[in-house]
Amino acid sequence: MSLPDPLLIRNVRPLGRAPVDLLLRDGRIAAIGSALEAPQERIDIEDGGGALLLPGLVEGHTHLDKTLWGMAWYRNEVGTRLVDKIDNERAFREASGHDAAGQSLALARAFLVRGTTRLRTHVDIDTQAGLRHLEGVARTREAMQALQQIQIVAFPQSGLLQRPGTAALLEQAMGAGADLLGGLDPCAIDGDPVRSLDTLFGIAERRGCGLDIHLHEPGAMGAFSLGLIMDRIAALGMQGKVAISHGFCLGDLPPAERDPLIARMAQLGMVLITSAPPSRSVPPLLACRQAGLTVLGGNDGIRDTWSPYGNPDMLERAMLIGLRYNLRRDDELDVALDCVTHAGARGCGFEAYGLAPGDRADLVLVDAQTVAEAIVARPPRRLVVAGGRICARNGSLI
Amino acid sequence: MSLPDPLLIRNVRPLGRAPVDLLLRDGRIAAIGSALEAPQERIDIEDGGGALLLPGLVEGHTHLDKTLWGMAWYRNEVGTRLVDKIDNERAFREASGHDAAGQSLALARAFLVRGTTRLRTHVDIDTQAGLRHLEGVARTREAMQALQQIQIVAFPQSGLLQRPGTAALLEQAMGAGADLLGGLDPCAIDGDPVRSLDTLFGIAERRGCGLDIHLHEPGAMGAFSLGLIMDRIAALGMQGKVAISHGFCLGDLPPAERDPLIARMAQLGMVLITSAPPSRSVPPLLACRQAGLTVLGGNDGIRDTWSPYGNPDMLERAMLIGLRYNLRRDDELDVALDCVTHAGARGCGFEAYGLAPGDRADLVLVDAQTVAEAIVARPPRRLVVAGGRICARNGSLI
Ligand SMILES: [Zn+2]
Ligand SMILES: [Zn+2]
Repeated sequence: MSLPDPLLIRNVRPLGRAPVDLLLRDGRIAAIGSALEAPQERIDIEDGGGALLLPGLVEGHTHLDKTLWGMAWYRNEVGTRLVDKIDNERAFREASGHDAAGQSLALARAFLVRGTTRLRTHVDIDTQAGLRHLEGVARTREAMQALQQIQIVAFPQSGLLQRPGTAALLEQAMGAGADLLGGLDPCAIDGDPVRSLDTLFGIAERRGCGLDIHLHEPGAMGAFSLGLIMDRIAALGMQGKVAISHGFCLGDLPPAERDPLIARMAQLGMVLITSAPPSRSVPPLLACRQAGLTVLGGNDGIRDTWSPYGNPDMLERAMLIGLRYNLRRDDELDVALDCVTHAGARGCGFEAYGLAPGDRADLVLVDAQTVAEAIVARPPRRLVVAGGRICARNGSLI
Repeated sequence: MSLPDPLLIRNVRPLGRAPVDLLLRDGRIAAIGSALEAPQERIDIEDGGGALLLPGLVEGHTHLDKTLWGMAWYRNEVGTRLVDKIDNERAFREASGHDAAGQSLALARAFLVRGTTRLRTHVDIDTQAGLRHLEGVARTREAMQALQQIQIVAFPQSGLLQRPGTAALLEQAMGAGADLLGGLDPCAIDGDPVRSLDTLFGIAERRGCGLDIHLHEPGAMGAFSLGLIMDRIAALGMQGKVAISHGFCLGDLPPAERDPLIARMAQLGMVLITSAPPSRSVPPLLACRQAGLTVLGGNDGIRDTWSPYGNPDMLERAMLIGLRYNLRRDDELDVALDCVTHAGARGCGFEAYGLAPGDRADLVLVDAQTVAEAIVARPPRRLVVAGGRICARNGSLI
């Protein structure tokens, strides 16, 4: 795709501040200021109408490959244990011939139309599906690349040790287009945390890739696994390359046990990714941030065999983060927005992110007076600009 | 207002079941069946297009009088204690001359356009505002009465004992149009639970009215207050006339202490009203229902000086209830819907409620395949019928 034409956007309020104009050129923000001169006669000019300007939203944890978005309603009759959900999903896929490419594209587009321009997705790698989900989502990543940056995590949803051959598939995935390596509950799912984590970190070491590990394990068990993970980060020099998704255990432990873990995570440059589920313990958002940990938000699965919930709208996720952490003051809601914007981009390593000259021109306009209102009201996206191109208007892709 | 003309609605799926037609006459559902004959030549016929049909939604706990809905954004810089929020609100009102009539009307209409046809609201009664909020919301109740049934609870937001004269104002309120008497944390706010509850129940006894008591008190303190409340219900024969709003203590206690309280509440015909807040302990929804307690849902305040959250969309409240209680299966999501439909109407005592012949014709059509999809997707209301009249279409009042 060729570079986009320059574009001048007039009269928008970055994060609710005073109105400015933005000049976009070659897919970047070239200038930002009041009453910018149009640099050539025939430049496209867009009237922002005083709308609130946000940087492109960031989804830090989803599962594009699993979604049933847009399909006939899936009647959920699944049991309550984690293993019930894992087994049910494998059986459903076998029976339905689930199309990871088509489904992930539909959901990626649904994210884009609601302003998400950067996104990290896990894809299931298992002995049943092989690399099929990776291949499908890699096609979506390619189709979207001019507009939406997608990171793919190769994820052993059925466990790393449970089915022989999974580790080899994960290693293959790292050579076949996955950006990061995923992990899952080394005690509760794999039952052998040392061997599980040694296998996982072994692949990461050979491949030189970052890690994003689902850690649902509660309380002391989760803290134990987290300790093993941190030992390996320190031993292998993988500082700054490991994210923990969920980390529910950090919400279970008393501060005296929890805070040293959080301090060590910060010291190892780890990142914490939360969906802020209302029904689970969650890591203490503000304490983690105070300790210097980057905390970012994600939906987790969206409308799949696991759960009917989820919405490709990161303003709604910010609202759920706000509700979960009882963030009511405007300055607290700025934190909720940070989880789906700057902290998201920093934690995932998305570059050239933001609203400054030189940043990639990923912009979202909404009719809201303030950031807080944008979060609680989640108005339709008046305009979405991605890589300098206008790609959606009032809820429709262009 | 005169009785509405008859109306035939074709091809709708009640709660997702097989398509039927509905004949509405004199504001009621007159007949429901497949391929109903139009009873007269010139009857209005509405094509339901196979949409999902829900009964009018029920809001069980809100504060219409407090809302800043539609106003300039209120920047929340309030402290975290309950008393900070109470004092802040009183100061804000003093300074702003808050208009309870206009604001409550704006929010009631916002509820209606999203399908809420029955609603219980608390109104602040205190020594500063006197009965002004009651008078304002009573005007809204009158303005809406052909379309939306509004119950008013006279609520001592600043405490019953703290400021002399409050009890007398509450008693006056019961003679000036309030439907129920409200209460608030007899230990934590009033500091004298026996005198507080004796005063409250004394008014209720003299006025012969029902009670709806805000009980935020946690753990053992909340259980203690709840015990005092139940003693008085039994002593005064007020079975079936008392609701507890919030009841967070029931989410704090271990089952062995909690379950006898719930059993006694059920035996006294009490009702539990929850906003299912993600950041607080909440009563166990399914255990309460199993014990025979009616549990219903409400927003609590919507966009006021207390909190920027809340949305006059009871499908969104059902989603938040589903998320809070981790209701994922379709049969569990039916419970979430029940909290904002039938259980809501039963718990508040709204009559002629439902989708059977003879019920008041309060209907909501949404484009959704199933009840579960209606809750998680919260689609725009395609059509809202209230008291047999079409009153909103696709998000706009008619
Ligand atoms: Zn996940
Ligand atoms: Zn309330």
